[in-house]
Amino acid sequence: MIIDATQLSQFESRYRATLINSLAGIKQAFLIGSKSSDGISNVAIFNSLMHIGANPPLWGFVCRPDTVQRDTLRNILETGHYTFNFVHQDDAEKAHQTSAKYASETSEFEACGLHEYSLSNFPAPFVTESPIKIGMKFEEKIDIAINGTILIIGSIQFIDLQEEWLSSDGFVDLAKAKTLTCAGLDAYFEAHLLQRLSYAKPEKWPNKL
Amino acid sequence: MIIDATQLSQFESRYRATLINSLAGIKQAFLIGSKSSDGISNVAIFNSLMHIGANPPLWGFVCRPDTVQRDTLRNILETGHYTFNFVHQDDAEKAHQTSAKYASETSEFEACGLHEYSLSNFPAPFVTESPIKIGMKFEEKIDIAINGTILIIGSIQFIDLQEEWLSSDGFVDLAKAKTLTCAGLDAYFEAHLLQRLSYAKPEKWPNKL
Repeated sequence: MIIDATQLSQFESRYRATLINSLAGIKQAFLIGSKSSDGISNVAIFNSLMHIGANPPLWGFVCRPDTVQRDTLRNILETGHYTFNFVHQDDAEKAHQTSAKYASETSEFEACGLHEYSLSNFPAPFVTESPIKIGMKFEEKIDIAINGTILIIGSIQFIDLQEEWLSSDGFVDLAKAKTLTCAGLDAYFEAHLLQRLSYAKPEKWPNKL
Repeated sequence: MIIDATQLSQFESRYRATLINSLAGIKQAFLIGSKSSDGISNVAIFNSLMHIGANPPLWGFVCRPDTVQRDTLRNILETGHYTFNFVHQDDAEKAHQTSAKYASETSEFEACGLHEYSLSNFPAPFVTESPIKIGMKFEEKIDIAINGTILIIGSIQFIDLQEEWLSSDGFVDLAKAKTLTCAGLDAYFEAHLLQRLSYAKPEKWPNKL
């Protein structure tokens, strides 16, 4: 079936949001941990992790300032540090629950059954239950003028993961770590590695690694 | 194990790139179809699809101008149109092969065993083999100053998909469509839906939908 721009614009707004959001792909689910300058911890689910570059190691994520994500955004801009915490498949409900509109003075850690974890004096809180924890330092805020969303870019300060998920060439198998992926605002997936393929060259077909 | 910023900076560059790239999450794999003003079709694999907003329906992707992705970028800026084509799990090798550095005058469609598909007079080529095809119109180019990457934002012009993958509330199950996901530059995954959860509210725990 074909859905064109006119039909899209005429859909009921929740239907359109679910369609466009879920169609935008299966993505890694992750929790951003942050702390306000008043010391209140915050944790919220995101799915827009973006690889920007490896040297220096830079990742971005997209933030909508008119949602519950605004606490996360404010904390990052105030303190300059935050954490990315991948989610174990068994913790989908707890991670999902962080998207509820709790009052700013509530810590979602406690409300959602997650636990705060301090690591190497890093100024932002990690999620104890998370199989892979990454400490980030804020680098750049980019305003996306067309609809007021914001791209936050940060540099990786450190990574905490199990050595058994890391191959000798640097590849991390996120399926082996049983991390959760998601699509749209409410669908959660598990992933299985099909294959890794050799570097593509014009004159030969890729091999399985 | 902990990897800190100093260790990261000292890793051999290919090892670091593989680590940072694969760790950035499992993502939807998709092919971007475009055509040069000379009429040469191009198709290239990407994995940085980003939901920007649903009304108007906007998606972005990240482009590195120093790679084979530069043909795609030039074509989009020249012609203003391009296509997103999700990849069936059986076509991982063909999709991967589009990342080889073919000469600009070569069409990767032919070289990689993929077929061009014209739809509703849309000015950019679709991939026949793709289970879900999306026509895009260029809207905004955002330069990411910190490392010279580029974020391209476009609006969805139309969507071609099977009705059986679309739920009554607008949710599209990309796992049902057997679309390919990937991590880093060479790892390909399949996904399975675990659950959809009800809208999160502070006073209640989410239910399975």
